[in-house]
Amino acid sequence: MHPQTHPHLIDHHCHGILRTPHPRPTFEAFLTESHAPAAAGTTFFDTQLGFAVRRVCPPLLDLDPHAPPEVYLARRHELGQDETARRLLGAAGITEYLVDTGLPGNLTTPQDLATLSGSPATAREVVRLESLAQKAADEAKDAQSFLATLATTIQAAAHHAAAFKSIAAYRHGLRLDPDPPTEAETHRAAAAWLKERTHGARLHDPTLLRHLLWSAVATGLPLQLHTGFGDPDLRLRDADPLLLTDFIRAAAPTPLILLHGYPYHRGAGYLAHVHPHVYADLGLALTHTGARAEAVLAEFLELTPFGKLLFSTDAYGLPELYVVGAQLYREALDALLTRWVDSGAWSAADAERVAHLIGAGNARRVYSSSGPSGSARSSAGRGADPADSR
Amino acid sequence: MHPQTHPHLIDHHCHGILRTPHPRPTFEAFLTESHAPAAAGTTFFDTQLGFAVRRVCPPLLDLDPHAPPEVYLARRHELGQDETARRLLGAAGITEYLVDTGLPGNLTTPQDLATLSGSPATAREVVRLESLAQKAADEAKDAQSFLATLATTIQAAAHHAAAFKSIAAYRHGLRLDPDPPTEAETHRAAAAWLKERTHGARLHDPTLLRHLLWSAVATGLPLQLHTGFGDPDLRLRDADPLLLTDFIRAAAPTPLILLHGYPYHRGAGYLAHVHPHVYADLGLALTHTGARAEAVLAEFLELTPFGKLLFSTDAYGLPELYVVGAQLYREALDALLTRWVDSGAWSAADAERVAHLIGAGNARRVYSSSGPSGSARSSAGRGADPADSR
Amino acid sequence: MHPQTHPHLIDHHCHGILRTPHPRPTFEAFLTESHAPAAAGTTFFDTQLGFAVRRVCPPLLDLDPHAPPEVYLARRHELGQDETARRLLGAAGITEYLVDTGLPGNLTTPQDLATLSGSPATAREVVRLESLAQKAADEAKDAQSFLATLATTIQAAAHHAAAFKSIAAYRHGLRLDPDPPTEAETHRAAAAWLKERTHGARLHDPTLLRHLLWSAVATGLPLQLHTGFGDPDLRLRDADPLLLTDFIRAAAPTPLILLHGYPYHRGAGYLAHVHPHVYADLGLALTHTGARAEAVLAEFLELTPFGKLLFSTDAYGLPELYVVGAQLYREALDALLTRWVDSGAWSAADAERVAHLIGAGNARRVYSSSGPSGSARSSAGRGADPADSR
Repeated sequence: MHPQTHPHLIDHHCHGILRTPHPRPTFEAFLTESHAPAAAGTTFFDTQLGFAVRRVCPPLLDLDPHAPPEVYLARRHELGQDETARRLLGAAGITEYLVDTGLPGNLTTPQDLATLSGSPATAREVVRLESLAQKAADEAKDAQSFLATLATTIQAAAHHAAAFKSIAAYRHGLRLDPDPPTEAETHRAAAAWLKERTHGARLHDPTLLRHLLWSAVATGLPLQLHTGFGDPDLRLRDADPLLLTDFIRAAAPTPLILLHGYPYHRGAGYLAHVHPHVYADLGLALTHTGARAEAVLAEFLELTPFGKLLFSTDAYGLPELYVVGAQLYREALDALLTRWVDSGAWSAADAERVAHLIGAGNARRVYSSSGPSGSARSSAGRGADPADSR
Repeated sequence: MHPQTHPHLIDHHCHGILRTPHPRPTFEAFLTESHAPAAAGTTFFDTQLGFAVRRVCPPLLDLDPHAPPEVYLARRHELGQDETARRLLGAAGITEYLVDTGLPGNLTTPQDLATLSGSPATAREVVRLESLAQKAADEAKDAQSFLATLATTIQAAAHHAAAFKSIAAYRHGLRLDPDPPTEAETHRAAAAWLKERTHGARLHDPTLLRHLLWSAVATGLPLQLHTGFGDPDLRLRDADPLLLTDFIRAAAPTPLILLHGYPYHRGAGYLAHVHPHVYADLGLALTHTGARAEAVLAEFLELTPFGKLLFSTDAYGLPELYVVGAQLYREALDALLTRWVDSGAWSAADAERVAHLIGAGNARRVYSSSGPSGSARSSAGRGADPADSR
Repeated sequence: MHPQTHPHLIDHHCHGILRTPHPRPTFEAFLTESHAPAAAGTTFFDTQLGFAVRRVCPPLLDLDPHAPPEVYLARRHELGQDETARRLLGAAGITEYLVDTGLPGNLTTPQDLATLSGSPATAREVVRLESLAQKAADEAKDAQSFLATLATTIQAAAHHAAAFKSIAAYRHGLRLDPDPPTEAETHRAAAAWLKERTHGARLHDPTLLRHLLWSAVATGLPLQLHTGFGDPDLRLRDADPLLLTDFIRAAAPTPLILLHGYPYHRGAGYLAHVHPHVYADLGLALTHTGARAEAVLAEFLELTPFGKLLFSTDAYGLPELYVVGAQLYREALDALLTRWVDSGAWSAADAERVAHLIGAGNARRVYSSSGPSGSARSSAGRGADPADSR
């Protein structure tokens, strides 16, 4: 594989970056899924992600690879927030961002992200269901108005968003009753939640989480589901994507994209293998494993059909994470495909075609053709890349 | 390793092939565990198995490797069903087939399979317990006659079959009470099932599935148990071989062979490590992972004692799957053993010995010496290959 | 990496070796986690560990690598128990042993182990909680005196031991209520256990196992927890370290070291990633996987922060297991680091620093600074190796 055979990437799942400068502790906090400071005597720079950031990013800021953290951070400060972001995002090779806008913090908008990346990039929104519910709850006077507002905002989102996203894995875990709750159950759960909650409180109620999932499924828009590892809010065993098996059966044919999945990503690949409407995402599973990204990507490429795997960075907060995520992905895929082509296991033409599918073609197909405004989006997205379909 | 150091393989778990010609959709359906057509815009040829078929098989039909699917299928049609089967099976290097005859469809018999493979091949039957039960139920007039017929057919099968096989993983999952049901429980379950079922209906009742398992264990014949991934009838989490732990303890010393196991194959290896009567099988775990077969085989070779791992193809329907399964296995093992011998980790003599064990010696030992007609089978199978034991 | 860049290793979790000569069956029994003899026609020498022993150890006894078992055992007998132990331990490159003294058998003391290893080695004790409880129970006249004795011995141990260790994974599994039992619950459980138990009987009661865990946590001394595979006393699914998630949250900030973890070691790495007080150990996961140790170590090095991973051998009974464990670890790490440095993914300086952390620095930090006598131990252990912290 030569790098030029890679498509411009579609990052189908990421977040905004911080608008304000950040001291080292803030920077380090974005290198880990931990909420706590690093253990005494250790640093989050001493991780696969930390080493990958120190390899990929310093040269983009005119430093040597593997510059010490303090040198890198000083140079970053010197260049300033915007110039740093422009250099890093500009080097990522991502031309379309699908941005989950449901995270808190003073973050860039999807459009900001596209602008910082340079002229050819575009951005679309991924709407986080739990954030819609929390906003509706903050403004609701009773359960009925809460549910009505929620229905309206989900309908509205379905007309402009690329996808919905659920973080039920964090809030309750994926051991959820797979069927939609009844109206009466939903109403009771809403009333109980509104009664007990304070402004801004998170949604943990399993009935309401299921109501969100099924409200999204009903729109037909692709639904992204967090699975696998993430911050310590979750119990990792309860984020096994295989826990979604019965929900997956019930929710067909709405496209479901299983995010990350690690260390249960082989199970995610199985689900994508046997269910036509299920897709697997790379996301965090590559970004956080650094020098091991190739090995983890290879495990995804066991059972996942090649038309069902999607690149993303899951980048959040730091512009470093986009370029590192994209670079790790490209290098990992190159290494695998080179080996498989060299050994004769794959043909070069197939390898190039698969690179286009995972990097862009699959996302273009999944996010262009579903949901209420599918045909409109489809006309823009389809047929642009002849390598994406055989 | 040179290919000639491989033994003639014993495929200790496979199925028949289709007797009738099959159009592309049928062919594709055998490349996947999915029951549904591929998602719009994708094809089951774009999988590790699809790529492996396109690499290995076209040259056997006088085409270039990686021929496009339509070219390959046209050539296959031109040669005809039998000539295609003869060429593909003849190239597999398998000289003994243990055939699970419990699958539906117009399939070849074990003897057909051996004949198509060329003169030196032989075949024996593996009897699927659930199929016996369904046949007995279709003919039974009441629970008592059903159970009596079942007992008789299991006894009869024990005298001619190489092994029994259970697919409880598909029908209920492996979260089964590990102990045998009482006679009264079995009778009640049988009566309830017969009352509710229609002709040809599958067996899902956990009490009767346990009755089948224990009826098979009582014969002492080796028992193959499906574990790990397969078609979407199963919930993959419920097919973790470790769920069998208590059953395994109770069923000793009847040999138990854990099929496939993926992605829980390391757990299967652990069970084979700590229980003398437990064996692990490769099967689907290599066939479906194609260019990754080496990596998956390597994981099996962590805890599984080398006298406890068995080659199989789990091929079904298409003759392609035998030759691809055998070829992937041989190449994967060669690659591993070459690396381990070159690095000094293993001696060349040990590597060759282990290749003989996994490819044939272990199966010969397991399937020759157990059960009621063990001694008869044993006299034919033992001692043929001096490399099988040290 | 050149071997000389490795630090002298701290083996933070191992056991004593047999004082008495052992015939082949005894020797073989220490090559496996199985309790039973090998299946007919197989031998425990035909395992990754068996092959690793035959590679590493014969040259240390003046034989060729890969000598047949009988030749090796004869030479061992010829040299005698002590000379064999001195040669093998002396070659391990371990200069500090943290020895779990809770195993039965005629085993060397920690001091014996250090002495056999040659002059620069030292040893400290790891106190197994369940053994303390069993000893206290053997001597107790009632629940009150049992609990009082236990409290006293735990306090006393906290003043001299390097760490506590729990094998709750073996005795009940890790599906334990995460919170400490109340005094009344503990008293009731103790009374019930004492009433039913015979002299020397093991502790399986979950309430008392939790009482032990929380008694240890209260001392602040590091607590080692068996997780993952081991002998067939355990149900492997119940040894998943992720089952400890809620206990981990509750037990902070006492350092918790998750031993082995395999095949759930990626989950252990996740826990070490998100919880400042959690560490992951290699132990059995490398020793038993032999030629695959590099691959397994690499999986640990995905999410585990480099300041959180600790080398150990978990060696027990045979001096072979120390040198094999140490050698497999060094070679595996060398291979990985060489590849990562050669590809540019890591810098050479970072690689060397990480080798020092995993091999010694992390253990020195964890076991020097916690618990009641932390400051005393700390003064001896800290600052000895400038490469251990950045």
